[in-house]
Amino acid sequence: MANAMLLPVLVSFLVLPFSAMALTQDFCVADLSCSDTPAGYPCKTGVGAGDFYYHGLAAAGNTSNLIKAAVTPAFVGQFPGVNGLGISAARLDIAVGGVVPMHTHPAASELLFVTEGTILAGFISSSSNTVYTKTLYKGDIMVFPQGLLHYQYNGGSSSAVALVAFSGPNPGLQITDYALFANNLPSAVVEKVTFLDDAQVKKLKSVLGGSG
Amino acid sequence: MANAMLLPVLVSFLVLPFSAMALTQDFCVADLSCSDTPAGYPCKTGVGAGDFYYHGLAAAGNTSNLIKAAVTPAFVGQFPGVNGLGISAARLDIAVGGVVPMHTHPAASELLFVTEGTILAGFISSSSNTVYTKTLYKGDIMVFPQGLLHYQYNGGSSSAVALVAFSGPNPGLQITDYALFANNLPSAVVEKVTFLDDAQVKKLKSVLGGSG
Amino acid sequence: MANAMLLPVLVSFLVLPFSAMALTQDFCVADLSCSDTPAGYPCKTGVGAGDFYYHGLAAAGNTSNLIKAAVTPAFVGQFPGVNGLGISAARLDIAVGGVVPMHTHPAASELLFVTEGTILAGFISSSSNTVYTKTLYKGDIMVFPQGLLHYQYNGGSSSAVALVAFSGPNPGLQITDYALFANNLPSAVVEKVTFLDDAQVKKLKSVLGGSG
Amino acid sequence: MANAMLLPVLVSFLVLPFSAMALTQDFCVADLSCSDTPAGYPCKTGVGAGDFYYHGLAAAGNTSNLIKAAVTPAFVGQFPGVNGLGISAARLDIAVGGVVPMHTHPAASELLFVTEGTILAGFISSSSNTVYTKTLYKGDIMVFPQGLLHYQYNGGSSSAVALVAFSGPNPGLQITDYALFANNLPSAVVEKVTFLDDAQVKKLKSVLGGSG
Amino acid sequence: MANAMLLPVLVSFLVLPFSAMALTQDFCVADLSCSDTPAGYPCKTGVGAGDFYYHGLAAAGNTSNLIKAAVTPAFVGQFPGVNGLGISAARLDIAVGGVVPMHTHPAASELLFVTEGTILAGFISSSSNTVYTKTLYKGDIMVFPQGLLHYQYNGGSSSAVALVAFSGPNPGLQITDYALFANNLPSAVVEKVTFLDDAQVKKLKSVLGGSG
Amino acid sequence: MANAMLLPVLVSFLVLPFSAMALTQDFCVADLSCSDTPAGYPCKTGVGAGDFYYHGLAAAGNTSNLIKAAVTPAFVGQFPGVNGLGISAARLDIAVGGVVPMHTHPAASELLFVTEGTILAGFISSSSNTVYTKTLYKGDIMVFPQGLLHYQYNGGSSSAVALVAFSGPNPGLQITDYALFANNLPSAVVEKVTFLDDAQVKKLKSVLGGSG
Repeated sequence: MANAMLLPVLVSFLVLPFSAMALTQDFCVADLSCSDTPAGYPCKTGVGAGDFYYHGLAAAGNTSNLIKAAVTPAFVGQFPGVNGLGISAARLDIAVGGVVPMHTHPAASELLFVTEGTILAGFISSSSNTVYTKTLYKGDIMVFPQGLLHYQYNGGSSSAVALVAFSGPNPGLQITDYALFANNLPSAVVEKVTFLDDAQVKKLKSVLGGSG
Repeated sequence: MANAMLLPVLVSFLVLPFSAMALTQDFCVADLSCSDTPAGYPCKTGVGAGDFYYHGLAAAGNTSNLIKAAVTPAFVGQFPGVNGLGISAARLDIAVGGVVPMHTHPAASELLFVTEGTILAGFISSSSNTVYTKTLYKGDIMVFPQGLLHYQYNGGSSSAVALVAFSGPNPGLQITDYALFANNLPSAVVEKVTFLDDAQVKKLKSVLGGSG
Repeated sequence: MANAMLLPVLVSFLVLPFSAMALTQDFCVADLSCSDTPAGYPCKTGVGAGDFYYHGLAAAGNTSNLIKAAVTPAFVGQFPGVNGLGISAARLDIAVGGVVPMHTHPAASELLFVTEGTILAGFISSSSNTVYTKTLYKGDIMVFPQGLLHYQYNGGSSSAVALVAFSGPNPGLQITDYALFANNLPSAVVEKVTFLDDAQVKKLKSVLGGSG
Repeated sequence: MANAMLLPVLVSFLVLPFSAMALTQDFCVADLSCSDTPAGYPCKTGVGAGDFYYHGLAAAGNTSNLIKAAVTPAFVGQFPGVNGLGISAARLDIAVGGVVPMHTHPAASELLFVTEGTILAGFISSSSNTVYTKTLYKGDIMVFPQGLLHYQYNGGSSSAVALVAFSGPNPGLQITDYALFANNLPSAVVEKVTFLDDAQVKKLKSVLGGSG
Repeated sequence: MANAMLLPVLVSFLVLPFSAMALTQDFCVADLSCSDTPAGYPCKTGVGAGDFYYHGLAAAGNTSNLIKAAVTPAFVGQFPGVNGLGISAARLDIAVGGVVPMHTHPAASELLFVTEGTILAGFISSSSNTVYTKTLYKGDIMVFPQGLLHYQYNGGSSSAVALVAFSGPNPGLQITDYALFANNLPSAVVEKVTFLDDAQVKKLKSVLGGSG
Repeated sequence: MANAMLLPVLVSFLVLPFSAMALTQDFCVADLSCSDTPAGYPCKTGVGAGDFYYHGLAAAGNTSNLIKAAVTPAFVGQFPGVNGLGISAARLDIAVGGVVPMHTHPAASELLFVTEGTILAGFISSSSNTVYTKTLYKGDIMVFPQGLLHYQYNGGSSSAVALVAFSGPNPGLQITDYALFANNLPSAVVEKVTFLDDAQVKKLKSVLGGSG
């Protein structure tokens, strides 16, 4: 009875401030059909629970390739719910003998959890070119500071899997070899700015589909 | 006479750099007809002095409700001039016996000025569940750190009024009771994640208009 | 009885994660005895409720001076609890005929609430030197974007009071007249960079205690 | 031979700029013996690979408690290498029937990967108290926006494990029940600010070790 | 031969992750036809090398004006490639006897490189009105903190040139004299908020094209 | 006479608020004797005009080395006045045939002004490995987004000089060749993560002083 009496007054309290605050931003699921901005995508309307959920990391990536490894991203482009939230994810599958080649993430730090197998990982500081390297087993985590060169490879005798989190929704991924050899940057320029030999540059350009 | 001579040259100086800088952003009054972004709304055009002014906090909120209190917001949704400026405001009216229930602002710290009456206020730290509480009189201020549970209630024998500022244009307001009881979250789930008794949960769901 | 049984297990749950998280930062009350950093002061230890409370804005500032106005700050230097929280406050008292002279806050936007009297306030945009001005009555609020020149003066026939919030803990206050005339910047330089007449500069230097 | 000739010149190039840049900050491993600052801890000296590695999430947490769950943090206090990098981690172990009670992280968004079992998870928006809930299986991820109430519980018939990443090095963890009942906040105040019945409040205060 | 074998597998590796990451944001060249946001302009599509290049600072600005100086901006409005990158530029040309009048940049710090001639520069702190001034010769640099009043003038017997960088893409430029005198702010208000004499205000209003 | 009367009142106004605001932070010149923090160094006391000035870029760097180039930094370590201000600088000297090898700045975007000669510069996007390259003449500027690989070399027949600004006080400099070859990262690992041939790796390790 008391409840019945309380109902109308409380609900009127409930309704008034909340209609007034209808534009509050708890989250901003990306509307990928809009142009991006420096702070992320505009917010889509009609958000549901599915926008905060992603199934795409559940299956192993296909490691039947030269590097015997696969990176499956859950960045804002795949998982729009992370837009504006300062975080994103990826899955690493590395077959025996596989490697995630030397690379950087220009826009985020990375935190790696090993969930299967053994991963050898390292990063290199800019100030002194110091190498920081660890052998990681199931359950171990390692952090790679933003923008620094790092790599991972399978250091064991079975497949390795890692879940990776990034400190931003759109970390980027610049693989050194692809940046150097998988485009039309002329061989002479590559050689000039890397000191690599001409034969080496041309070989890798050929392998990675570069021209020039 | 000297002035007359100076005029043409100075004005030409005036005009040239300023036309070149026509896109400078001193402020970004929200165009609420556009989609929000993680950094706030796109800027409207045709801004005037009225965009930086808000009258909506001048009148007392209606405290004729169960909690005997009213929160009148001046967030970006009500006061578009604060968009992008890292600040917003609200007015609290608390009748004798009234209370602003336990709540958080997910996206801003709060600074409260008491302008009339006596307010008992407190917040609770996350690390140790420590309660920080004060009795505030006219002229006193208190700060509530971002995201922490806090509450205010009238601790005196006359109406209390407070002006509140937030460290962001869209602080959000999550009232614990409304989050728990004023929606369709099933009672069994509420009980599981709060340890509250079934009768208690059902009573408050009924009062606050929740279902399930 | 059930409760008695639950007690030991729950408390052990309580104790373990919380000792592990003892370094969580809910807030960072300034230790003003340490050097500041670009993000604010180091955090003091031994925090209590009093650290989040400030009484210094309760009393009117002394307006018995030339400008017939007083600014009473509650910045991090006076109110260490706001350190790191992105907000601070001040009180403005403006007697009849009084003025807060043209000034900027280099490090914060300002939100002004009028609590007594009538205040005429304005700010000037940088892109086009446009003046945005309003007459503010009790209960009105106005926002002044970061870094832009603005002023307030009593526009009524009784004392005016305003509470002011800033979007940072240490907004700074650069009063144009003091910056130009209350130091040892040589008059010849002031004249060169402001186009003011020599007599005008020397008069104001004399009034405001400047030299050179 | 050519190499022998290049060596001295290149090394001199190498040495000069790098000694000049000895203070470059690639990372800032926390010196936990210093006071924290609003941006994190001061950087320790003598950093090694071990500073970027953490083993503490490899073992399951002890779920022999009332909630049948354990949260094992790898925040800056446990894993100083994440200081300043905008990321941290935790491990969730939830036995059958276990639950991570309703809580918020005041200072970070959360991204959850299920690595074993089935987890039912949900969060509640502030603007409309909308519940966003999903059943998550091995390999699924879900994101919980900063500062919003959320919960997880085991929704299956075997133990569940999740790895959790946060968008900051020190996310905080405010469990609603502990904030309300596990301290000395007087029962009368709790009841006033939550609308809970006196018996309910006293029961949970007793269970959770609160007083008053 | 080995290369020929590697080609198909590597390319398939190459293609898959990169199509998946097509929305990665390495940069966000401003689409100036869209509305600005608090974090900058939406990103344009169809970016080329020319978007990261600007020729507009190559030629000297026209100093045939009263102040014998010219500021040529390369802010986001002129150089859309800096959008979202936290940097922009300008060129200063100051003829003998010329001056860049007292001004602030509300939204950025400034770093000045002298490339020709001699520049006398100074800024004024807000806390104590202290003047920090230096005579700068070719090759010298000086930094001016965000939002503080500063000025530059030619201190030599030949033209001076400086390149200026800002810590944001849209620093703004508020010249004190223009803000005070080059608009319709009534003389009586200017006098009230600056303590300048009526004759002085009217003279400069006349020179700078102000009214009122 | 009027001035003499105004003096005491105004000065009292002047003194009171400014003593109260003695801790305002207009700038935070680095105290390099303290530990760094994630937001920069603690602020030194006893600041003078010299702290905002740096002469170290006035002289050409020594290009008598293999790369025929020199990078002279004015980062926070060399120029403590930029601490906390979001900006820093460097000078590039590139002799005929000289090159600044492929590198990244992990913590800042770069804006380059050519002041002498001709520079060919380029950067590579992460999303598609696209090369953005320009030939820059005296007076041209180019911007290189944070964290992306880029290079510069002398494209003319005389020495080239560039002034460079960064969007942060401590941008870092990671030269790909030094990161790969100038440390003790084992050759086998380098080969695995770069696909370079063993002979190539060993040759560059020898040239650049690496071991393993």
